[in-house]
Amino acid sequence: MPSAFDPPSGARDFLAADVEQREHVFAVLRTVFARYGFEPLQTPAFERLDVLLGKYGDEGDKLVFKILRRGEHEASGEADLALRYDMTVPLARVAAAYGSQLPMPYKRYAIGSVWRADRPGKDRYREFTQCDLDTLGSDSLLADAEALCAQHDAYAEVGLPEFTIQLNSRRVLAGLLAAFSVPPDLGPGVLISLDKLDKLPPAEVVAELTGRGLAADQAGELVATLTTDDAIDRLRIALTKTDEGTAGLDEVDTLLSLVSAQIPPGRIAFTPRMVRGLSYYTGPIWEVVAPGVAGSIGSGGRYDHLMAQLGGPDVPGTGSSIGIERILPLLSGRGESGQSRLDVAVTVMRADLAAQSFGLAAAARSAGLRASVYLGSSGKLGRQLKWASDSGARWCVIYGEQEHEAGAVTVRDMRSGKQASVPASELTSYLTAACLSSGAES
Amino acid sequence: MPSAFDPPSGARDFLAADVEQREHVFAVLRTVFARYGFEPLQTPAFERLDVLLGKYGDEGDKLVFKILRRGEHEASGEADLALRYDMTVPLARVAAAYGSQLPMPYKRYAIGSVWRADRPGKDRYREFTQCDLDTLGSDSLLADAEALCAQHDAYAEVGLPEFTIQLNSRRVLAGLLAAFSVPPDLGPGVLISLDKLDKLPPAEVVAELTGRGLAADQAGELVATLTTDDAIDRLRIALTKTDEGTAGLDEVDTLLSLVSAQIPPGRIAFTPRMVRGLSYYTGPIWEVVAPGVAGSIGSGGRYDHLMAQLGGPDVPGTGSSIGIERILPLLSGRGESGQSRLDVAVTVMRADLAAQSFGLAAAARSAGLRASVYLGSSGKLGRQLKWASDSGARWCVIYGEQEHEAGAVTVRDMRSGKQASVPASELTSYLTAACLSSGAES
Repeated sequence: MPSAFDPPSGARDFLAADVEQREHVFAVLRTVFARYGFEPLQTPAFERLDVLLGKYGDEGDKLVFKILRRGEHEASGEADLALRYDMTVPLARVAAAYGSQLPMPYKRYAIGSVWRADRPGKDRYREFTQCDLDTLGSDSLLADAEALCAQHDAYAEVGLPEFTIQLNSRRVLAGLLAAFSVPPDLGPGVLISLDKLDKLPPAEVVAELTGRGLAADQAGELVATLTTDDAIDRLRIALTKTDEGTAGLDEVDTLLSLVSAQIPPGRIAFTPRMVRGLSYYTGPIWEVVAPGVAGSIGSGGRYDHLMAQLGGPDVPGTGSSIGIERILPLLSGRGESGQSRLDVAVTVMRADLAAQSFGLAAAARSAGLRASVYLGSSGKLGRQLKWASDSGARWCVIYGEQEHEAGAVTVRDMRSGKQASVPASELTSYLTAACLSSGAES
Repeated sequence: MPSAFDPPSGARDFLAADVEQREHVFAVLRTVFARYGFEPLQTPAFERLDVLLGKYGDEGDKLVFKILRRGEHEASGEADLALRYDMTVPLARVAAAYGSQLPMPYKRYAIGSVWRADRPGKDRYREFTQCDLDTLGSDSLLADAEALCAQHDAYAEVGLPEFTIQLNSRRVLAGLLAAFSVPPDLGPGVLISLDKLDKLPPAEVVAELTGRGLAADQAGELVATLTTDDAIDRLRIALTKTDEGTAGLDEVDTLLSLVSAQIPPGRIAFTPRMVRGLSYYTGPIWEVVAPGVAGSIGSGGRYDHLMAQLGGPDVPGTGSSIGIERILPLLSGRGESGQSRLDVAVTVMRADLAAQSFGLAAAARSAGLRASVYLGSSGKLGRQLKWASDSGARWCVIYGEQEHEAGAVTVRDMRSGKQASVPASELTSYLTAACLSSGAES
């Protein structure tokens, strides 16, 4: 049952383990992107309303979170700002605002929250993280190849066990329609039906195509070209009949050859029936899929006129989008089993020994260890050991009357329960050594 | 002149150098906080409106960015959500929502954006980063000492050259008012006037105090106790006359003693005239100041009833707030001089050699280097060297017809302009070695 203390519908609180997993993944992505020479960009959470509206279609506009005007204007009920809906419209604004200050081509990545007033559901949030990398200002296929390789490395290095990049080109699709003499006005609908070949039996897709006005033999041959065992070979023959198809094939083959040194075979495949839904793509397009996951876990492609359509400069562009929220659940948990959240928990057995306990924790920190001192009011060892355990501590340092008199401390291994008496002056070197050997074990 | 492409008023775009400086500082802070056993918390950018309103006073409420209801409710002009105004109200909500799932005491830090519809000005933004660390559920002075030490380490480790922590206690202030028989109703006003002693001449503060209704000799003696050379000694004598004053002094002295092992002398000082403006503090209070900076660059204190006042559980609390936006300008620029943004820039001299150039960049990346291939259309070396230089590359790898025929590449040191011919197969090891020795130089 939702409580008054839950976060707003569709938004999430991230407690320690979640934050740590997410930040770890983001850090890996940043390292990958930097290695390709992409630089970071951070834009505000909100934009002026007119910058956002009209860029996402009517359906998109409805999902924009609008911010009410303030002060005397609040009563108007009007909005003047809105929360960022994606990373692409802010990129267009930045490209227009800082043109000459930006390196050209401008290779940037952005990792951050976006907000959409969608109906919340399983794995569908109103506040979620997007991760995009884009290259503006280059029409070279090398830029598409970089985007593909960086996307591949991103998934590989965050530890995603299995995934495949499906590669295609809008020009291949255009050539396909031309090769089968599909009337131009039927083209978009035909592509939408063909995109279903990974979900529906071929016969159903044929039926859909004839329903759209294609002749039965034309529809049958088109589907056969895409689904039979020698589909790719048949398609290649069909495509070479038109200039557009030839150019599309050449684009795909060049890309596959360029990335072959970095993307292992089996991780990327020419997938002619893959149709990215968005109409703004102009060249190569790709989607990333993973076994057992419906839909894609990432995508990308070339969009040579999109920046101008979004109010930015008229520069070619290409880029990848990493489906962060989709891949996070696929990664095995980090920091849950085996890893300690704290190196040293220090007991406070008596109020008049608190300063010494605090000093022991300080000494451990000076050696770079994560150390915490007991902050509760119980003087009982059992309670304090439970606190040490709850805190995820690797060792507990016990400093009571006995230890105080002996000038020593008791170090308890919280995994084995074994205890050792260590001279107070040697505690830091003892713990540092223990940490190193414990790290080597796990 | 503001352009249509500027970010909204009071918000900022962060290009690469800014993002890198900020992320570096945040990473240092996270490491410090983890060392003290504080864990991260991330809450949504927006909260339900009723969670935020009424928590910041009338003035604060006016500065809250409200989000318009959506769909059929949009026309009502009403808001149901609002952007986070600080990190404290979300903390109270989280403490109420996840109580038993959280470690107790709950030591958390939060680094993230908050939004306030303040009038934008120099160093005053509508979107800015707050960084808080708090301990809920402990009334031990050890918790205050940890907050102080962690705050000290944070400033020291991000490289802030000079700063001082001014320490006081609400109980010292209460004892001071009692010792000078200030009528309770005048207390708050008197403290506000005393807080100005670091800006105004003592005589003006005395005048302000008499204006508030204090007798002239009482006002004069009070100011003298706080400003003469032996002020602290006189104050200690005055404070020991009352129980509250004695307890306050004891609190300050215990804290100073606890932190002395971690905070060097001169970095923290008992500052009896320091009055934190906010009324919710109940024990120790502190502010961090830096030479040449008006106001404070950080603050903190104990607030034992605040969580309950904010709608959370009635638990004691203490914490520090790091004035991120105030300290960032004080830190010397990173990544500007000397540091390379890219290790290797690879030329593309001829279209039919593009794949080889791409492969050279790929090989450099496999060795962990940051490498970029030329994505433009010029075949001229001069243009490509300018691109390499603009990209901040440490080395440029030139691969043209001559190199292709010789099975070699030319490596140009972008700092010295010196060039070397390197067999293509040895490029990666050559660059790795060059990177290491270049890193050692700078």
